[in-house]
Formats: sequence, structure tokens, C-alpha cells
Amino acid sequence: MISKNKIKYIHALEAKKRRLEAGVFVAEGNKLVADMLSAYRCQFLAAKPCWMATQGDIPAEELQVADEEDIRRASLLKNPQDVLAVFYLPAWDVEEVRPDQELVLVLDGIQDPGNLGTIIRLADWFGIEHIVCSSDTADAFNPKVVQATMGALAHVKVFYTELESFLKEWKTQGVPLYGTFLDGENLYEKTLTRNGLLVMGNEGNGVRPDVEALLDERLYIPPFPPGRATTESLNVAIATSIVCAEFRRREGLKREV
Amino acid sequence: MISKNKIKYIHALEAKKRRLEAGVFVAEGNKLVADMLSAYRCQFLAAKPCWMATQGDIPAEELQVADEEDIRRASLLKNPQDVLAVFYLPAWDVEEVRPDQELVLVLDGIQDPGNLGTIIRLADWFGIEHIVCSSDTADAFNPKVVQATMGALAHVKVFYTELESFLKEWKTQGVPLYGTFLDGENLYEKTLTRNGLLVMGNEGNGVRPDVEALLDERLYIPPFPPGRATTESLNVAIATSIVCAEFRRREGLKREV
Repeated sequence: MISKNKIKYIHALEAKKRRLEAGVFVAEGNKLVADMLSAYRCQFLAAKPCWMATQGDIPAEELQVADEEDIRRASLLKNPQDVLAVFYLPAWDVEEVRPDQELVLVLDGIQDPGNLGTIIRLADWFGIEHIVCSSDTADAFNPKVVQATMGALAHVKVFYTELESFLKEWKTQGVPLYGTFLDGENLYEKTLTRNGLLVMGNEGNGVRPDVEALLDERLYIPPFPPGRATTESLNVAIATSIVCAEFRRREGLKREV
Repeated sequence: MISKNKIKYIHALEAKKRRLEAGVFVAEGNKLVADMLSAYRCQFLAAKPCWMATQGDIPAEELQVADEEDIRRASLLKNPQDVLAVFYLPAWDVEEVRPDQELVLVLDGIQDPGNLGTIIRLADWFGIEHIVCSSDTADAFNPKVVQATMGALAHVKVFYTELESFLKEWKTQGVPLYGTFLDGENLYEKTLTRNGLLVMGNEGNGVRPDVEALLDERLYIPPFPPGRATTESLNVAIATSIVCAEFRRREGLKREV
């Protein structure tokens, strides 16, 4: 049985403040926890025997065999699965991000945990290893984000920093800064580089004016038919995916040559 | 003031059963309601004077000036805006869908209202006017879906039907049937037509085997680097957006020639 104190501890980790104090976060689900074990140190893991049987050695500091009712009580999900774990927060240093050599995603004020999780997941698909966020972007270790990543946090590192100075520093080194704008140039007619910074903005307001002023490559995803006037827009995760797919399609073409 | 009975009526419309019985659905938000007024007959509309002042004649059977507290009590949202309205459900006939002449999106068992709303929104962006769903796909007039469409339901029609017979009928007429599969062929190397049926499947299980058996064009969104082995996948709305963007990019290229 999982103790009452442990259940209280796990539920408190829904709050960012508590996660930072304790230096840990929660992940749940049969595939997700297995993925996360390969990338994060595990403090506590509770699972049904059926899940444990699918794993080799489980590197958790504290391991608890649990039944349906245990998992239900400890879980933060509507539909609990067979395993739940508490992992230590990583200590990642934004100095390892190299937009002069790689395509890096930059998020300016993304609020919705589902959007952030979906963006981390698609970054993984497109081999983007680093995402740099403004400090007011949703926390990547919010349980809702962790669940939406479907395990991609095992491969993608997410950093929080003061965006303006981060972007300025790389801009002075000649790294291209891309963004999407309704008055931008057709994505499919622009030169896209293998490296650089792709900045995506807040769901309602887009990127901050101070950040926008730094972006020299203004992209636009053309609607269909092309040139059609529209007052609509795309969800930020959708826009991110279309732009990332196009960066990677071009790069794939170059490799074929 | 909005009457207690009216508030009860509006809240009951969260349930699909009640929406079907009453033949109506709820939409909220300053831009969303304005968009919906252009496409659906309005039974009831409650708004603050500030919103009403931005509109011309408002074609609602019952119009109610409301204050902050009225809207808060009637609203189904966490963050209510200045206007809320009840619209009549449309009577759309799947016979008007012509995949021999247009690209039509087909959804097989999409469960998440956020995903469905996001897909309707991106369909609008890409000029896809018709979406045909299996009967177990989330209801397009679920308030969560309506909100996530951001008004796209004013331009895109969503149909519910028995998919297998719908798809079979068009297949016998030579219409191409596309789907995305982990063992499909590289999207960027396939011929894509201007018309056809693009089938996207359930979040966890993909398309049903009976439906899959009908699809002759199996697409795959290549990860990066190309050929990289991955056990991951993409969110269904993300996959839909990448495939739709590519269909429309190709069509745009043809128009330039």
C-alpha cells in the first residue's frame, strides 16, 4: 500500500512551487514511465505487478508494488494506468544550446500545458533536441505537460531563460532568427537553414514586441487557396509543426542530392 | 438578468443528449460568437453592452443585455468573455460532400474535443470545407470543441456517418483514399491529388482495421534525421496539419506553373 503521506506528497507536486522545493516531478503511464526511466533519476515508483513484469531492473530509489486502488489514489490522472513515478528534476544548462549548429525552438509565453506538451513531442519527432522558453512559458514538468509529451521529454531538453538577451547574443553571432507572422513571407518560398532559432509566441498575443524586433526571418504559412484573405489563425502547436516539418523536408532534400 | 431557468438550460447543453433533444448548442467569446452568427441561426444571445456596441443588427430570436455576473453564471468557460449564445444545430447532408472534386478529411474515432476542435480550425485554414466523422468521433458541437475551433465551424461542415460504407462508395468511383501509417511511404515522395479522402484515426489506436483495409495510399511523415528509428508518434492534430499542409503546398506549386 502507498502511505497517506506519500499520496499527499505526490498530489502536492501538481504545484510548480512544490516541485521546485522538492526538486522532483511526477510522470505516469506504462510507456511514459519506461521512457522517462532512461533519462531521469527516479526517486519513487509505484506499479502493478503486471507492469513490473514487463521491465528489467527498475532503477528507482524506492520501489512499491501497488494495486489498482493504490494507483487510483496516488494518480493525478482521470484514467490512471499501471504505473506512477516521481523523478528528480534535471540540471540542464542553456550553455549547451548551439543554434549556430542546430535548429533550436524558442517559446515566448506559451501558456497552455497541452500545447507545450504537444510541441515537445513534435520537436522530438523532428530531431529538435533543445527548446528554450521565456520564464513565463508553462513549466515543462507540470504533470499535464509531461503526460502530453508522451515520453518526448526523455529526448528533448527544455530550458527557461531571459529570452531577449539569449536571442540578442546569438543574433550578434549571425545566427538566423525565424518567427511566424500574418504579414510574413510565404514559408515555401523562403530559404531555410539547417541551424537557427525558430521563435513561436503566446497563444493569444504572439511573440512580445521586444522579441519580434529581433527576428529577421518572418515566415507565413499560406492558407489555401494561396492568397485567400482570412481573419483566422492556426493553433501555435499546429503552426510549429508545419514550420518544423518544412525545415526538415528541405534538409532531407539536401541530403538526397 | 438572465433567468435561473435559462442558466439551467444553457448548462444542460454540455451534454450531447440534451443538445440533440433541444436541437441547439452553445458558443462563447467575442470573436467566436460574431463568426458563428454568420453561419448559424441564433436562438438566444446574452452580451455585455461593450460587445453589443461592436456589432450591427444582431439576428438573435432572444437578445439579452447582460453584466459580468450574468455571463459568469451562464458561462461554461473558466474564463468567460463578454458574450454567450445558443445556436440551432445545422441540418447538413453528407450527400453534398464530393471527394471526387475536393480534398475531404475523414476522422475515425477521434476522442479528444481539443484535438477535434484544432483539426476543424486547421481544416478551415487549408480550405477543407467538409469533414466526415465516424459516429464515435467526439461531437463537433460539444462546447469544448466549439471553443477550440476559434470560429472555424462557421466555414467547415462536419458530418457523422457510417464510415465504412461511405468510404467504399467513393472507392468504387476511383477516389483516392489516403491514411498515415508508421509503415507508410514518405509523404514527400508520394503523388498527392487535389481531391480525395484523407483518413485520420483514433489517438491511441489509429484507424480501425476495417477502414484501414480500404486505404490504398499509405503515407508516412518522416522523422528527422530521415530514416531514424523511433517508437514515438505524433499527436493526431499535428499529423493532420503536416499532411494537409503538404497537400496544399503541392497544389500551390501546380498553380504557379
